[in-house]
Amino acid sequence: MLYLIGLGLADHRDISVKGLEIVKKAERVYLEAYTAVLLVDKEQLEAYYGREVIIADREMVESSSDEILADADKVDVAFLVVGDPFSATTHTDFVLRARQNDPPIPTRVLPNASILTGIGCTGLSLYNFGQTVSMVFFTENWKPSSYYDRVKENVGLGLHTLVLVDIKVKEPNLEAMARGRIRYEPPRYMTVAQCAAQMIETEEERGEGVCGREALAVGVARVGAEDQLIRAGTLEELAEVDMGKPLHSLVLVGKRMHEMERDFIRDFAVNKETFDRVWARDYEGKA
Amino acid sequence: MLYLIGLGLADHRDISVKGLEIVKKAERVYLEAYTAVLLVDKEQLEAYYGREVIIADREMVESSSDEILADADKVDVAFLVVGDPFSATTHTDFVLRARQNDPPIPTRVLPNASILTGIGCTGLSLYNFGQTVSMVFFTENWKPSSYYDRVKENVGLGLHTLVLVDIKVKEPNLEAMARGRIRYEPPRYMTVAQCAAQMIETEEERGEGVCGREALAVGVARVGAEDQLIRAGTLEELAEVDMGKPLHSLVLVGKRMHEMERDFIRDFAVNKETFDRVWARDYEGKA
Repeated sequence: MLYLIGLGLADHRDISVKGLEIVKKAERVYLEAYTAVLLVDKEQLEAYYGREVIIADREMVESSSDEILADADKVDVAFLVVGDPFSATTHTDFVLRARQNDPPIPTRVLPNASILTGIGCTGLSLYNFGQTVSMVFFTENWKPSSYYDRVKENVGLGLHTLVLVDIKVKEPNLEAMARGRIRYEPPRYMTVAQCAAQMIETEEERGEGVCGREALAVGVARVGAEDQLIRAGTLEELAEVDMGKPLHSLVLVGKRMHEMERDFIRDFAVNKETFDRVWARDYEGKA
Repeated sequence: MLYLIGLGLADHRDISVKGLEIVKKAERVYLEAYTAVLLVDKEQLEAYYGREVIIADREMVESSSDEILADADKVDVAFLVVGDPFSATTHTDFVLRARQNDPPIPTRVLPNASILTGIGCTGLSLYNFGQTVSMVFFTENWKPSSYYDRVKENVGLGLHTLVLVDIKVKEPNLEAMARGRIRYEPPRYMTVAQCAAQMIETEEERGEGVCGREALAVGVARVGAEDQLIRAGTLEELAEVDMGKPLHSLVLVGKRMHEMERDFIRDFAVNKETFDRVWARDYEGKA
């Protein structure tokens, strides 16, 4: 059996009791380590589980999945995913490959907390969210704005948008590569501030009134952890906020917001005066 | 401290290791028992936790929350919620009341799996979902169709819609009430078949082409449990399917679907011929 086990959002103790039992008994244990990170490292997980954990990078999962699936029709293999196995990243293709293997490999998924629902900690109702989008690191010459079209659809309906931000782990160093060597860049995690700044940048390019400087948003960091942090404000304000260690996410709030949602996020406002002014001018009764 | 602890979707062992530690040490433990149910009962939970669990019905949480919050500025109180504390039902108002209490009561949320993300087990990408809606039990004279407007917005964008179905627990018996007595009806859980039938009924009334007999949908039952069941088909087909014990949910699929999503749900088709015919006629390339 191939078990896809969600680890939840914060640390090693967010795994379910059932998931931990499977990890302790499985023949092999892999940790998917390219789409999200826990706030603890591999060594801590190994110490906690009392066994070896094999890091599965993108290449291993997407190209060499035979290695992970080997014998999984006969023995139990645990594949650990930070958050929920089917959420921010879908491991659907991986499960399809297991199903289509010869012999077919039975799979079982243990869901867990995901940022897609953990974002409820902001007090924003999950019923009022539209599509989720991803934000990649812009470069000098590459500032993709396809996310903007989806955000625009949500904004048009007055809905909130969860923006998941980019992380880069195990990115090859291009200079080294040119000299035929493999060296990896240190991991990079996008911050709420960078995300807000990039949204403003796209708005300035596209100009369709989707996510300008004074659009209200909520930034979150380390959801589910003890030092979880929430900050609300205009994108311009959030572009200046330091929210500390990863992982971060951002919600662009929609106009179809209840007063209770407003009350909840107002407590986290960077500046309550700006918040109230923008709220009264652009949001209240505008759904 | 007031801890809101998600229990996950299936049974007592879906709580996180961290959550279980808090439950074992807390001064009092409440179980929110009116918006969702685990597949185990209170007695099993008590045996597993080794302690008393107090059932918190809607009235207690919404009107008598002082009892739950009593002394929670000094002692630890655990409030257990099936699924995730902030997902299908938002306990936002409850947290606001704790915050505004005199003295204010610190709160901490332990997220867990929710049907909002557990629905990823269908292979449908959570990035392609629009707003989530709720379906209530229709009666002879009350068939609210406000959900239809939201589904229509999603359909217009080619997005999937998760439809959460009604459950009725601790509903007073009206005849007994008329005679001044309090007696409760047995709990009722809406099935995928009832939900599909009601959607067809609304479509026949409204006629805006949102969820007719041949719209494709996916029904799920007991997500995350060992006997989890997934069935795909037209609403007409799903209206005839028996998916067994609760809890059920349904997804109306959108036209902006990848081929991989199609492949994944096709394996669960009630009837692959119908599925392929409807897919080719109404969905493929229609986004």
